[in-house]
Amino acid sequence: MVSVTIWNEFIQEQTEDNVEAVYPDGIHAVLSEALERRGHEVRVATLDEPEHGLTPSVLDKTDVLVWWEHRAHEDVDDAIVKRVCDRIYDGMGFVPLHSAHYSKLFKRLMGTPCSLDYRESGERERVWTVDPGHPIADGIDGSFVIPETEMYGEPFAVPEPDRLVFVSWFEGGEVFRSGCCYHRGNGRIFYFRPGHETYPVYREQTVQDVIDNAVRWSATETGATIDKANRSVSPSE
Amino acid sequence: MVSVTIWNEFIQEQTEDNVEAVYPDGIHAVLSEALERRGHEVRVATLDEPEHGLTPSVLDKTDVLVWWEHRAHEDVDDAIVKRVCDRIYDGMGFVPLHSAHYSKLFKRLMGTPCSLDYRESGERERVWTVDPGHPIADGIDGSFVIPETEMYGEPFAVPEPDRLVFVSWFEGGEVFRSGCCYHRGNGRIFYFRPGHETYPVYREQTVQDVIDNAVRWSATETGATIDKANRSVSPSE
Amino acid sequence: MVSVTIWNEFIQEQTEDNVEAVYPDGIHAVLSEALERRGHEVRVATLDEPEHGLTPSVLDKTDVLVWWEHRAHEDVDDAIVKRVCDRIYDGMGFVPLHSAHYSKLFKRLMGTPCSLDYRESGERERVWTVDPGHPIADGIDGSFVIPETEMYGEPFAVPEPDRLVFVSWFEGGEVFRSGCCYHRGNGRIFYFRPGHETYPVYREQTVQDVIDNAVRWSATETGATIDKANRSVSPSE
Amino acid sequence: MVSVTIWNEFIQEQTEDNVEAVYPDGIHAVLSEALERRGHEVRVATLDEPEHGLTPSVLDKTDVLVWWEHRAHEDVDDAIVKRVCDRIYDGMGFVPLHSAHYSKLFKRLMGTPCSLDYRESGERERVWTVDPGHPIADGIDGSFVIPETEMYGEPFAVPEPDRLVFVSWFEGGEVFRSGCCYHRGNGRIFYFRPGHETYPVYREQTVQDVIDNAVRWSATETGATIDKANRSVSPSE
Repeated sequence: MVSVTIWNEFIQEQTEDNVEAVYPDGIHAVLSEALERRGHEVRVATLDEPEHGLTPSVLDKTDVLVWWEHRAHEDVDDAIVKRVCDRIYDGMGFVPLHSAHYSKLFKRLMGTPCSLDYRESGERERVWTVDPGHPIADGIDGSFVIPETEMYGEPFAVPEPDRLVFVSWFEGGEVFRSGCCYHRGNGRIFYFRPGHETYPVYREQTVQDVIDNAVRWSATETGATIDKANRSVSPSE
Repeated sequence: MVSVTIWNEFIQEQTEDNVEAVYPDGIHAVLSEALERRGHEVRVATLDEPEHGLTPSVLDKTDVLVWWEHRAHEDVDDAIVKRVCDRIYDGMGFVPLHSAHYSKLFKRLMGTPCSLDYRESGERERVWTVDPGHPIADGIDGSFVIPETEMYGEPFAVPEPDRLVFVSWFEGGEVFRSGCCYHRGNGRIFYFRPGHETYPVYREQTVQDVIDNAVRWSATETGATIDKANRSVSPSE
Repeated sequence: MVSVTIWNEFIQEQTEDNVEAVYPDGIHAVLSEALERRGHEVRVATLDEPEHGLTPSVLDKTDVLVWWEHRAHEDVDDAIVKRVCDRIYDGMGFVPLHSAHYSKLFKRLMGTPCSLDYRESGERERVWTVDPGHPIADGIDGSFVIPETEMYGEPFAVPEPDRLVFVSWFEGGEVFRSGCCYHRGNGRIFYFRPGHETYPVYREQTVQDVIDNAVRWSATETGATIDKANRSVSPSE
Repeated sequence: MVSVTIWNEFIQEQTEDNVEAVYPDGIHAVLSEALERRGHEVRVATLDEPEHGLTPSVLDKTDVLVWWEHRAHEDVDDAIVKRVCDRIYDGMGFVPLHSAHYSKLFKRLMGTPCSLDYRESGERERVWTVDPGHPIADGIDGSFVIPETEMYGEPFAVPEPDRLVFVSWFEGGEVFRSGCCYHRGNGRIFYFRPGHETYPVYREQTVQDVIDNAVRWSATETGATIDKANRSVSPSE
């Protein structure tokens, strides 16, 4: 059991009918239910809460932070971004989903523009496992299909992943590195592309299974505390 | 100008009509002409020559070795494989093409099975540049098409590439990591997937441009000589 | 609890007095005791057993294979090397120790010469954790000392590690990448430098702790089975 | 010949006697002379110039930016940091030196704290080449000595380098990853540890040779332009 916080900007579900139709209680509700059913302890935080719901005590209790963000890229407070990064450096896992590639948080952790090509036209996506030995691929078929989704295409302006787990094929002719692992400080990061606010991608069992695996993988206990400041030391010898 | 040796097993062009029809003078002839036209000095070596044409003096003169192999995987002599590997460790570039993923040479350098899925049915391939900043992508479009080819699909059982430059999309629904960079010792390796013996893939200008870029990149002069044997040393301090 | 097989060539302990003095029951005996005390199930295999003690049924039961080899580099049977590699590709962990850097097995998995500089003069070694967030660094101090040991120096002719966990400082002025992680197929590999046959390095608690961590890390269950052969497939779409 | 801009905060040379004694015309003057003598075209920019001397036209003309920063970490303007990063993503090389590990610029590109241990006590440093095949090691000895310097020790809180070229040994017992390669967008980055404001490290010929190599390597022409913004596209097929 992992202690998970799901963060959702929770905007479009309350302001756009076609989003509300798919996620009437918010994207976080579907993700929460999926992760609780798989045995995790889940709490939710949203943009409009004080400190976006990410107080120090919430972060301290969080093993893995799952992140949905789409419209609010400029509205997330820089101080909270810094606080979350520091917690990641201390070992908290981080699982940014889909459009969160363009969050301040992910861009800050990557050090690159994190841009990509996209197209919203309900295409079929086939997600391929390219690293079957990775724990996030555990129990996942060689490929799985998302019947209708938004396309994301290369080039995806990120650093070379530590390990690339999934690559997507799209009906319209594009490919995308859909499952990318990084570590920053003691924290493990898994960017996962699938997802959308008007296609019910997060109701797909295999997509939920991958997020479950990512939560387990990124929550792995690790060792020493990493320093986040320079430190003057005496000779060792 | 790079000093290139193109190695071709040169079997199917002499024994199978449909291969001869596409490459009447051998795959090496098309590749030689393409690289000479782009300013390189090219020699050719083939399986049936003494020492497979890869004598120490030929290897010494070679900056980059381009490799086509398909039927002869078991017929390449282990001593020559070792000799070529040693020359790669000393800094020679190596560009294995298409079915050479299954050569003794490439498998020895990778340390993995190097297996993959395949299908010969003349499908369209679209090759995407995922690392536009890499020298091998220089002047190559965001994507380019090979009208008819054999499909290669994931999982491709190789170590995570140092840099992944190209990913292919196939009409039949698969993806493949088509341009993979490695270094082994002082040598640079670029595996390039496109190519086939019955589709005229090596007559495509963009495919030739990529191989030209790979030759230039892998020929880069490097520094110190790498030791290939343990060495007992005196204290430095 | 991990099912561990410790493989020891078990030569010098039986033929050289100064080795027997340090490891009277064999290096494997000290390692076995250390890993059993930490909760693992341990069996032992040695060079002179039939199939070097590494029958298919032993390997099938083995989650992690710990490997000591020093004199026997040329005596390990190629068929057993291949069998062990295949089992690693299927997901077995592999922890080669010290002079095993020069084993056929490690060289085959790396694809490089794996050579280094060395000096046997009982120097002090200080091992530094450079990746404190890695599970193998769990509970290990920022640095720890081995009072007397054989020196290994750079350049170590291996591929860039996936993650570099430890770097050693030596009294005589050298440095060495002492803890290197790789994955090959589904298998996790951790090369660990410390150790020697005439210095009691494997009796050091911290060294034992690191090997324990390496065993836990490399035993991690992973997902899909990796193919070790090419496979013809039908279209996915 | 590479078009180099050397950026120096140029503070301590004007305010501290013991720094002025070593670098009377500024650290940039010694670096300029060293790089000009090796055939490069060099300009200088400093903190107190308008826009820190880094106008768009200066950056456009710059192939490689060499960076010294020690006291001014908080005084470098965020808008200039962003401008420099964008130019790096477009392909400009970046060579941060020594204490620039703690610059906003380097931290932004890395996405990590970039902290380390340090000690100013005039110790001897021995820099080891661990990747002799890398172009930045070209012509550099297996190891070279800096007689007196400030120590930097691990853990260095950066992402795993794409390639690690140098590791330092210090008299006082520490080690450090002293030469680290990264790419971000189309730009190549080489962090180089040696250097100090009160030890004449930048007058050492080998240190100058390494910086020269880093300038040549990071200036390498690369291909396609990387997008720095999301882009909506039409189907490819």
